[in-house]
Amino acid sequence: MNFYSQDLRISTRKRIEILDITEEVYRVVRKSGIKNGLVNLWVPHSTAAIAVNEHDTDLWEDVVNVLQKIAPLKGDYQHNAKYGWSIREQNAHAHILNCLIKPGVSIPLENGRMLLGTWQSILFIEMDGSRSRRVHVQIMGE
Amino acid sequence: MNFYSQDLRISTRKRIEILDITEEVYRVVRKSGIKNGLVNLWVPHSTAAIAVNEHDTDLWEDVVNVLQKIAPLKGDYQHNAKYGWSIREQNAHAHILNCLIKPGVSIPLENGRMLLGTWQSILFIEMDGSRSRRVHVQIMGE
Amino acid sequence: MNFYSQDLRISTRKRIEILDITEEVYRVVRKSGIKNGLVNLWVPHSTAAIAVNEHDTDLWEDVVNVLQKIAPLKGDYQHNAKYGWSIREQNAHAHILNCLIKPGVSIPLENGRMLLGTWQSILFIEMDGSRSRRVHVQIMGE
Repeated sequence: MNFYSQDLRISTRKRIEILDITEEVYRVVRKSGIKNGLVNLWVPHSTAAIAVNEHDTDLWEDVVNVLQKIAPLKGDYQHNAKYGWSIREQNAHAHILNCLIKPGVSIPLENGRMLLGTWQSILFIEMDGSRSRRVHVQIMGE
Repeated sequence: MNFYSQDLRISTRKRIEILDITEEVYRVVRKSGIKNGLVNLWVPHSTAAIAVNEHDTDLWEDVVNVLQKIAPLKGDYQHNAKYGWSIREQNAHAHILNCLIKPGVSIPLENGRMLLGTWQSILFIEMDGSRSRRVHVQIMGE
Repeated sequence: MNFYSQDLRISTRKRIEILDITEEVYRVVRKSGIKNGLVNLWVPHSTAAIAVNEHDTDLWEDVVNVLQKIAPLKGDYQHNAKYGWSIREQNAHAHILNCLIKPGVSIPLENGRMLLGTWQSILFIEMDGSRSRRVHVQIMGE
């Protein structure tokens, strides 16, 4: 059993934004030399998240629209009221959506390939940008 | 550390449908001979998902109703408009719900038993059927 | 490759409630002696869930408010109607939210530390309390 891990650094530019990080993750997978096991992605943030879905910027706008219906940016949040003096802390929507979308995913790795289907890309979902973000890539296997 | 993996094949019949795949997953677990570790389920699709909840067809209708409130089948989606010529691509609702429900789950395995509680069954959630689907079952452990 | 596992026991007091269990999980991690690998948390229940987010009781009320908008306690559910004779089974909202929030999470462990960011605590989300609950903590690694 081998372990390999590396942080990806991501700079987001917009308040809410979806970025495809599949290639960056694959670079770490190849560097690891591990062929079979599990690729564990982990976002050590509470206002960004990870999903695995199609690379389609039109679809991404649809995703963002629904997320904003679930938890609107300008909702009536106690978290935001408490930090009313701080523009940076008006982000309850992002915390709430992180509880639903989740900050991690485990993707099976076999023969050096992550088992992503044709329409599956690894998507980083920024919900309180712009910010500097990290995605921890941990590969365990053989 | 041992690895064992196998694909389950699933044929769905309805546009939106929940299927209990617990027995099929258990068959793979038993075949693997692995007793302790992790059972990683992965749906290599972007319009279906996995949940773990009660086997109750009435409840499943409640689940589907709420999912359709979050992302209605006939919403105003850019993804659907772009593919307006294709009946098969009117599925933004399913992509969006996959981002929330997620395509995978990792269930602990101990003494040959998945640690499913009394009211936990493994549920495949089709959101853009009918289709042929796969669920990848990967077991790692000893 | 080593495995270590232990159940945490949790008593919830309210119908819907968020509890920070980070310290209890860390106690198991330290006891395991495992330094690198994966910490797999699993709730063997279908009406409670796990999230990883900020320890802020004001935010938790915001989270609960949005969850109740997605699946209201007193919605029109077939599951509840079927079990109309049982006060304990008026919990379709909790089942539905479990399908979205999920009963498990896998957190990377490196050098004895879970890779939780500054604003990440492990949160147990009770949605049908008060009840006695369990969280299974499984650590695999070296």
